[in-house]
Amino acid sequence: MRMKKKVVIIGGGFGGLTAAKTLKNADVDITLIDKTNHHLFQPLLYQVATAALSPGDIAAPIRGVLHKQKNVTVIMGEVTKIDVEAKKVCLNDDQFEYDYLIVAVGSRHSYFGKNEWETFAPGLKTLNDAITVRDKILLSFEKAEICRDENEIKKYTTFVIVGGGPTGVEIAGAIAEISKRTLRKEFRHIDPAKTKIILVEAQDRILSIYDPGLSEKAKLSLEKLGVEVRLNTKVENINETGVKLNSGFIETPNIIWAAGNEIPQLIKSLNTVLDRAGRVIVEKDCSIKKHPEVFVIGDAALMLHYNKPLPGVAPVAIQQGKYLAKIISRNIPQSERKPFKYFDKGNLATIGRAKAVMQIGRIKVSGFIAWFAWVFIHILYLIGFRNRYKVLAEWMWYYITYRHGIRLIIQKD
Amino acid sequence: MRMKKKVVIIGGGFGGLTAAKTLKNADVDITLIDKTNHHLFQPLLYQVATAALSPGDIAAPIRGVLHKQKNVTVIMGEVTKIDVEAKKVCLNDDQFEYDYLIVAVGSRHSYFGKNEWETFAPGLKTLNDAITVRDKILLSFEKAEICRDENEIKKYTTFVIVGGGPTGVEIAGAIAEISKRTLRKEFRHIDPAKTKIILVEAQDRILSIYDPGLSEKAKLSLEKLGVEVRLNTKVENINETGVKLNSGFIETPNIIWAAGNEIPQLIKSLNTVLDRAGRVIVEKDCSIKKHPEVFVIGDAALMLHYNKPLPGVAPVAIQQGKYLAKIISRNIPQSERKPFKYFDKGNLATIGRAKAVMQIGRIKVSGFIAWFAWVFIHILYLIGFRNRYKVLAEWMWYYITYRHGIRLIIQKD
Repeated sequence: MRMKKKVVIIGGGFGGLTAAKTLKNADVDITLIDKTNHHLFQPLLYQVATAALSPGDIAAPIRGVLHKQKNVTVIMGEVTKIDVEAKKVCLNDDQFEYDYLIVAVGSRHSYFGKNEWETFAPGLKTLNDAITVRDKILLSFEKAEICRDENEIKKYTTFVIVGGGPTGVEIAGAIAEISKRTLRKEFRHIDPAKTKIILVEAQDRILSIYDPGLSEKAKLSLEKLGVEVRLNTKVENINETGVKLNSGFIETPNIIWAAGNEIPQLIKSLNTVLDRAGRVIVEKDCSIKKHPEVFVIGDAALMLHYNKPLPGVAPVAIQQGKYLAKIISRNIPQSERKPFKYFDKGNLATIGRAKAVMQIGRIKVSGFIAWFAWVFIHILYLIGFRNRYKVLAEWMWYYITYRHGIRLIIQKD
Repeated sequence: MRMKKKVVIIGGGFGGLTAAKTLKNADVDITLIDKTNHHLFQPLLYQVATAALSPGDIAAPIRGVLHKQKNVTVIMGEVTKIDVEAKKVCLNDDQFEYDYLIVAVGSRHSYFGKNEWETFAPGLKTLNDAITVRDKILLSFEKAEICRDENEIKKYTTFVIVGGGPTGVEIAGAIAEISKRTLRKEFRHIDPAKTKIILVEAQDRILSIYDPGLSEKAKLSLEKLGVEVRLNTKVENINETGVKLNSGFIETPNIIWAAGNEIPQLIKSLNTVLDRAGRVIVEKDCSIKKHPEVFVIGDAALMLHYNKPLPGVAPVAIQQGKYLAKIISRNIPQSERKPFKYFDKGNLATIGRAKAVMQIGRIKVSGFIAWFAWVFIHILYLIGFRNRYKVLAEWMWYYITYRHGIRLIIQKD
């Protein structure tokens, strides 16, 4: 009897989960390992951070998603080492051998070597991050309301977002709306509409993966919402009192980090070529040098596509996951594998309630139509019917009422 | 110009929030102070703990509920002292004077002097509690799945619930369902259907506020779901390895506490007569002795009604809140106040998906009709339309599919 090939997938994000699902009918034994128990729809994480959606709306238990797929075993645990020579991955108390390995571990925000900043300026990559940020935002308004000192109030109602990529833009827009719309009539001593929101970007424009014209439109939309956009501005220091920029010091406890990417240390145990950001430079078939059975996909990989690196977005990881499933299910040797080709479906970023910018190849759209496309596409990609219809209901409600309903402060002990 | 009367309400639970809302048109200045920023629909908290509902489904920001009511200021903060002589309440950095004070601080579970048990056997009174319990339950199955040792697996798949009141019964039923139904097909190494669930009750029957016949029916329903009900059983000790009962030791990290009530220490600063559980023994108008302007309602009060103490349930607190609003808005002197009268709408407890027991005066119902009534009444009382329609949708989904959708482990750092 022929032994089934063992496939180990590290990471239950877009890439890893898609690979596992696409291998549904393959005659293989799959082990999917993730640090958490849920798949997370990261593009909507900022909506949890700004109280528009519940964690349960954008996350689904990986076991639940895969429970009918008998060839998958789901393991919640942290991989501590990958041994490419012995073909096995090690957890604290356990290890798994593989014939094929897919590394889809994603990325975290990078503090460019200043990891001590993280305490004061949390990032936004996990549900826990989002709840931390939500608590921070809501608590600040509560603290301002009981302040008698004007300077203190100013401090609590100032928000600095570092990084003008999609996450930074989306969260700045959402904080502007929550303060100027949702919370407007809820306080008696302070006026949340006077909230100061500053988006800091080191480059000379925000949303640099888009066409410059759309960057400019996004900037204008943000400014209309009351967000101050500071371009060519670098962060020099962050501590408990505030953030020091090259243009001066801002006193606030509310700093949110949305800049840079860093790849988990685990990647180093692959002993292969990395770029400066720690990403694995992969071959045209997503494999690593000398190991055609080991693949890295998604944010953790650097793949050149027509001489440009592929962006760290969900569609790249999803398409790579599908591509690998084909290679693995048919057991295609490296020499016969066609190179991975990315089909660019375009990019979309939302700015507040009913505005967005969208770029699909040469087509550039902004405003309400882009926003509507954004809502539609996001709902389409939400995994699990249940989440989909709930999120749609939430959005309808939110669109009609301007209410961010999940304004809960759940302080950790 | 006549000064407006100052009303301070401590606590935004059923009693405090109802009092504030009923004073909507009164010519008074209300300050509502709560430790959290949300009103919590506590009767459904066990559904958050068992992953059927999201925190946002059963909690609403107090500011949001009251934002149109101009005579209320909401303060998030912890009252540290009540000074009944100087007529003021003190927070850490602030204080508020009052003409009328409503103390509606609720209760926490009591560990009968063994507070060190709380670490190993969390209770279920706040959203944070519910998320802690949810993490505990879900993590246990994850840990069991990667175990190779039969004894360890047994340990992780054993659950002990202490206390056979409504909360204990409801959570035991829900854990039975989640393990025997929802999770049944999701694991490859363990069989969640073999989960052992033990409900421990010190008295000779569960649900002792009900008619003995209904207690017996509830017990049978639980046993049908696979819950072992141990009556006349006392807890002697709890530590990190398990729970010692007078009938023997059970090895498990999964202990949930649903017994006894304890009133916040703050109550002592009222310097008035307390019962053994720390509740304030109030007058017929809910006021405390010698201070007709200070009222205690809800779980923190002991009020005799036809010589029996009123139970610690939401309808009592709600009716007391309405009663006080009338006294305060009309400024009725104590001598002219009619005594508070409780209108008993009956009691309801649910056991799993489609079973419940209900008692309204002499009417006793059990089974599906009671469950249906339970769903209907709970949705009716959920504050805020948004939550209501969402929870109904969740329940329909849950009823059709048996899926507990919010199975997220959000581990605290």
